[in-house]
Amino acid sequence: MKLTRRNFISKSSFGLPLLPITFSWNSNLSLKKEKHSPLKEGDVILFQGDSITDSNREKTKELPNDSFSLGSGYAFMGASQLLFSNPNKKLKIYNRGISGNKVFQLDERWEKDCVNLKPDFVSILIGVNDYWHKRDKVYDGTIDVFEKDYRGLLNKTKEQLPLVKFIICEPFILMGSKVDKSWIGPFAEYQKITKKLADEFNSLWVPFQETFNHAVEFAPPSYWAPDGVHPSIAGNQLMANKWLKIINSKE
Amino acid sequence: MKLTRRNFISKSSFGLPLLPITFSWNSNLSLKKEKHSPLKEGDVILFQGDSITDSNREKTKELPNDSFSLGSGYAFMGASQLLFSNPNKKLKIYNRGISGNKVFQLDERWEKDCVNLKPDFVSILIGVNDYWHKRDKVYDGTIDVFEKDYRGLLNKTKEQLPLVKFIICEPFILMGSKVDKSWIGPFAEYQKITKKLADEFNSLWVPFQETFNHAVEFAPPSYWAPDGVHPSIAGNQLMANKWLKIINSKE
Repeated sequence: MKLTRRNFISKSSFGLPLLPITFSWNSNLSLKKEKHSPLKEGDVILFQGDSITDSNREKTKELPNDSFSLGSGYAFMGASQLLFSNPNKKLKIYNRGISGNKVFQLDERWEKDCVNLKPDFVSILIGVNDYWHKRDKVYDGTIDVFEKDYRGLLNKTKEQLPLVKFIICEPFILMGSKVDKSWIGPFAEYQKITKKLADEFNSLWVPFQETFNHAVEFAPPSYWAPDGVHPSIAGNQLMANKWLKIINSKE
Repeated sequence: MKLTRRNFISKSSFGLPLLPITFSWNSNLSLKKEKHSPLKEGDVILFQGDSITDSNREKTKELPNDSFSLGSGYAFMGASQLLFSNPNKKLKIYNRGISGNKVFQLDERWEKDCVNLKPDFVSILIGVNDYWHKRDKVYDGTIDVFEKDYRGLLNKTKEQLPLVKFIICEPFILMGSKVDKSWIGPFAEYQKITKKLADEFNSLWVPFQETFNHAVEFAPPSYWAPDGVHPSIAGNQLMANKWLKIINSKE
């Protein structure tokens, strides 16, 4: 099954004809009414990750609920819908993603960029650079290091913030200018680890690979992420809508 | 009725208790399936206006479908959802709002910033500076000049782009650091003109004042637009969702 969906992406990148199915974002965006929202008054939500989360955010003030500090990607889009749909909750939403980061780099700045913010929800999207930089021989961390570091980060967080809820996002790839088929097999091993950790830590899990695989039925991979790693505006909105759906489906 | 809704805003600014009604953005965001979308393949959509539309957009490249060039306000948010939900339409979405603009300043740059882009849809949000700058005695255009210039702009556009569809957005105010009750009566006259022109030109009409009046039932005006003119992230998302609902309800 894994192979099937991986194959699907690469087939699509060669220009599968578009299917005559309507692609309604209603169905992807079925936020429940506020009374079903898992968010409580005063909740702090933190987005963490690499360049995909960073999305050119302002890094001097790093304010919550601020359009400069939230960047222009899925974190900003998710935050803006949460702030819109929870007007009476006094939410604080931070983005602390940093371009190029691997999991050990999150760990290095975790006190400042996670624990000190006292988040109720921590959303993490990490892993593509752990594979990519190793592949390019500019980093020597193995996949076992990735798993060990990621688990260590989550354990450390739970120790200091026992009530924290994790939202673990699956790293993803599409066929693009920086990604070819040879990524699929080895990168799937990194993806599996993030799912395994999500289960171990009883976390929310956002299956972004499946989300993008579905999207490429409607437009070629380049529409959603030209280089195969960094999403377009449409790709970021796709992510935000999926992320919101997962958050709001939590009882 | 006008007085009632105006009164409501100012009452809310003094801290009406929040109502225990759920505020679901589902109901505000009921985009129909793509087959009902008014957008055709290759459509060009242009956002025009003042600082609210501008929202710190990049002004050197001014690219379509680009997160820097679209700014970080309702135009970006509306564009990202349209690009997400119409992946096979090859839409081009531009933002050419400029901070501080009044209607005559749109006119001065209309050839370059509208006609040359050959838009199929032109969304215009203008008027708050026409009133504000006159009020502050830094501009001497009367309300009659506003009406004459705005009508002239729409006529000129129709002459050069006979098939263009207008989306006329109502300028709005909330009680805030730059706006007090004395704005309400005279500004309502500007709002009426935009509605009158929307009717004259058989345009889509986005009633933003009513949208914000509804929103202040759920959080104080400062949550949606701290200074009473420029929306917060939540206020911009409120606008984008309303704008999308109007666009997608068009048959």
